[in-house]
Parts: sequence; C-alpha cells; structure tokens
Amino acid sequence: MRTPAENAQLALLLEVTATPKPGNVDRAREYPDLRFEHFMAGAVGANEGLRAAAGDPIGESFERAIEGMADQRGGNTQFGALLLLVPLIRAASDGDGASSGSEELTPERAAHVAEATTVADAAAFYRAFEHVDVAVDDPPADMEALDVRRGADAVPAIEKRGMTLYDVFERSADRDDVAREWVSGFPRTFAAADRIAALDGLVSDRAARVFLELLADEPDTHVVTKYGESTAQEVSAAAATALDGDTDPDALADDLVERGVNPGTTADLVAAGLFVALERGLDV
Amino acid sequence: MRTPAENAQLALLLEVTATPKPGNVDRAREYPDLRFEHFMAGAVGANEGLRAAAGDPIGESFERAIEGMADQRGGNTQFGALLLLVPLIRAASDGDGASSGSEELTPERAAHVAEATTVADAAAFYRAFEHVDVAVDDPPADMEALDVRRGADAVPAIEKRGMTLYDVFERSADRDDVAREWVSGFPRTFAAADRIAALDGLVSDRAARVFLELLADEPDTHVVTKYGESTAQEVSAAAATALDGDTDPDALADDLVERGVNPGTTADLVAAGLFVALERGLDV
Repeated sequence: MRTPAENAQLALLLEVTATPKPGNVDRAREYPDLRFEHFMAGAVGANEGLRAAAGDPIGESFERAIEGMADQRGGNTQFGALLLLVPLIRAASDGDGASSGSEELTPERAAHVAEATTVADAAAFYRAFEHVDVAVDDPPADMEALDVRRGADAVPAIEKRGMTLYDVFERSADRDDVAREWVSGFPRTFAAADRIAALDGLVSDRAARVFLELLADEPDTHVVTKYGESTAQEVSAAAATALDGDTDPDALADDLVERGVNPGTTADLVAAGLFVALERGLDV
Repeated sequence: MRTPAENAQLALLLEVTATPKPGNVDRAREYPDLRFEHFMAGAVGANEGLRAAAGDPIGESFERAIEGMADQRGGNTQFGALLLLVPLIRAASDGDGASSGSEELTPERAAHVAEATTVADAAAFYRAFEHVDVAVDDPPADMEALDVRRGADAVPAIEKRGMTLYDVFERSADRDDVAREWVSGFPRTFAAADRIAALDGLVSDRAARVFLELLADEPDTHVVTKYGESTAQEVSAAAATALDGDTDPDALADDLVERGVNPGTTADLVAAGLFVALERGLDV
C-alpha cells in the first residue's frame, strides 16, 4: 500500500513515461538539455518534500520538493506538477503521512487545503523560485513588487500586503492553469483522474490519451506564456485533430519537439490526475 | 543531496531507462506482461525497504523492499537489483539514513556488511520469496530443504543448520552472479561503477554501454538458469560483437526480446554499479 507521497512520486514517473505527449519529454522524446533521466532524478529528489506535504506547512513542503527536484542537470523538470501535488497530498493524508482512504480525496477537501494557506506559505512559494528558472509572464504594473522572479526579494511585499498563497494564485488564475486549479477545487485534475480511471489499457497509455484530451479541450497556458495565444490555440486544435484520429499524434509530437513548443501545464495536470487516480485505487 | 536510499531508487530508475539493454525492459522495449511502468512502480514501492536498509536488519529491509516492489502487475521487476542494493545502502550509510560520504562505500565495507549477516537475515530472505516469483535452478539433492522456492517453509531448515544469509549465498555463488557479488566484495559492481564514472555523456547511455561490457565479459547467470549455458554464451558473444561495433546493439535488443532471453543479472549489476557511482558523486 503506497503512501500519498509515494503515489505522488509514481504519478511524476508515469507522467513522463506516457508517450506520445506532444511537445513534452516522454519515454520516446527529449530535448538536448532536458532529458528523460532528469525527470527520474527530479522525481527522486522531490521525495522528501512530498513526504513533508502530508503534515508540514504547504509552502515549506513545496519549497523542499523544488529544492530536491532541482538537484539534477536538466533544470526545471516538475515545478508545476509539484505545485499541484503538494496540496493534493495533504488533502489525501490523515496527517501522519499515511493515506486517509480514497473517500477523503475530494475537490472540496483539496479546495479547503488551498484556502487554508498562509502568508508564510506564500513566502516559501516565492523562495522556491530561488532554486530553479520558471517561465512566467511579466506581471501587471501594479504587481511588479510581487513578480515571482524576484524570489525571496518579494517576500517583504508579500508580508506587507498579508497575502496568502491562495491570494497569490487568485491573482494569476486568469493566465495560469495551475493557479486556476488551486483556486477552483482542482476541476481539471479531478476530471483527468476520472478519465484515466475510466479508460482501459496500460496506465501510461491512458495518461497519454488524457494529455491529448486536456490539450484539445483548452490551450496550454505555459505555451501561451512562452509563444502567445495563437500558437497555443493552434497546438490545441492540432491535439483535437490527433485525438480524432485524423492525424498521427506521434507526428505532432515530433513537430512540437522540433519547434520547442512544450505544453507543460497540460503535463502538470496529467501528473496531478494520475495522483488522484492512484489514490482512488488505480492499479499499475 | 540525496540519501543512499534515494540514490538506490534513482539507480533502479536509471537502469531501466538505459537503452538499448539487449533482452531487458528499457525505455524503448518491453514484454507484453512486463512493462516499463511496472519498473517505475517497483522502484517507488521499494522505497520503504530501501530506507530501512540504512539502519534496520539487512534481511528484514530486503523483505520489505521486495514486498513493496511487488505491489504492481508486472511481478518480479527488481529482485536481484534490490538484493545487491540493500547491503550497499548499509555500507554507504552512517546508520541514521544519511550518506556517510563517498570514502565509506568501499568493497571492504560492503563485504563486511555481507559477512555480518545473521540467521534471521537468511530467514527474512526466504520469506521475501513469498511475495514474488523468481527464476531459480533446482537445488542440489542435499539442499532440497533449502530451496528458496519453499519460501517461509524453508526457514526451520535454515534455523536448524544455523545458516546466515552470507552462508546461503556461499552455496549458490558458483551459479548466481548476485550471490557471487555478495560473497566476494561486490567486484563487478564496483568495476561497473568505475566504468560508469569514467565514460562521458548521459548517465543512462553510459549505463547501457556498461551493460554490454558486463554481458560481453561473462555469461549472464539468469540466462544460464532459464536457457542453459550455451544460450548464455551465445548472448555473451553477441554482446561482444555489438560492443565492437560489428553489429547493431538495437538489433540484438530486438532479437533477444523477441526470443524472451533477458540477461537480468547483468541488469542487476548495472543498477548496483549506478548506485555506487551516484554515492561517489556522479551527477545526473
């Protein structure tokens, strides 16, 4: 019987295993500086933070997970996935690190964990950016002091405004799907978990299928940030065509990797969905 | 900074990632009933036993690792690798689960751990066979009572003869390379670690290369057990040819998977070698 922290680690590993996952590193594709093996090391390194998430403060657990994850040469492998997994582990735990049983991991409970975050959690979240480079947009003019790229330097402004981690995500929920999950009860995460559980076949094959479904459903906000809205919509439409069987998903994967267009937020949602499905009894 | 248990887990993941590793599951190949994702789940499930290995009794830690590893649908994914990793984790640990520093992980120290095992360790080793099917030869006539396939039923005989885990491996060292490592200071493990550290490139690519080198060097005892001496020698010769560049290692990999001939003991040695290299500072 795996603990929530172990299921979270397995979710990270199954996510990167799933192929084809167009544009992202998977079992069959990688980038010159971002390799499959870096994701293995990232998942192992996150271990301590994932275990802490069952009982320690959310922000501190997340920072620890990121620091451990970043201890490999690929850089940012699983930042967004860990940001989703940490509150979900807490929601799935009874406080001592054991699983509290599948009935406990609900959108309501996950929403409660998110809403209960503190200013200290927000400060730890900002400090996590010290360990790794994350692609983010320029903030609105009135939020420059809160730019996550400032890392620990932004903490005084966070404290002065009394912002909790939930508050931080509320301000970026319109342009970042991980933040949107945080402030809305993780709807796409739980929907992905249901789809993974409902499909047949190998878990990694199901995860690849659900990746395409999520991507076809909504433009990836990481692609929007890096390449703009129209590229994100084009990728989303291409995923829909591949999903219908009109084009080959492997060809799309080759094309996106060639162009360096990686729908990373969609991959994060798949990892979170895998976690929820595993907690609810999915067998591997 | 990863703990020894974390490095052991990473070694398991990097081993199965390494491709081509002719005849074994790797990033590019798998068997219908033994999939890449089963190795991910096996490595995660072994987690608790690997952590225990830093301080708890060797046999009990191993049994716990096997029980956790077996909690997936593929069956026996990493039995031999864990059997090598557990004493090596102990040798690399200062007793509280932290790494004791690279200078501590020596063949001498690993040999000492093996030699210090008890009758209770042997009993736990036998109990581990209750969790999983392992391919082994029929024992010699005078050792039928000690057939590992008897699992816990063999424990009274073990206790009656006062056999330690080291004693058990002494009796099979002539036909099982994992046992031979145990009773001889892990020579091929440490040699593999040195080769992995000396090569350039991605760690998983180095591991695949060292797999071929080990296989070319000596017939795989798992193949001997399942297919006989002549098949094992043929596979070894084919590995040597692929290593020289005279044939394509990927073609050899396709051929062996097609025939179901998996040099599993050689893969176990690669996992153990990866662990030693990681403990000694190899970066991923």
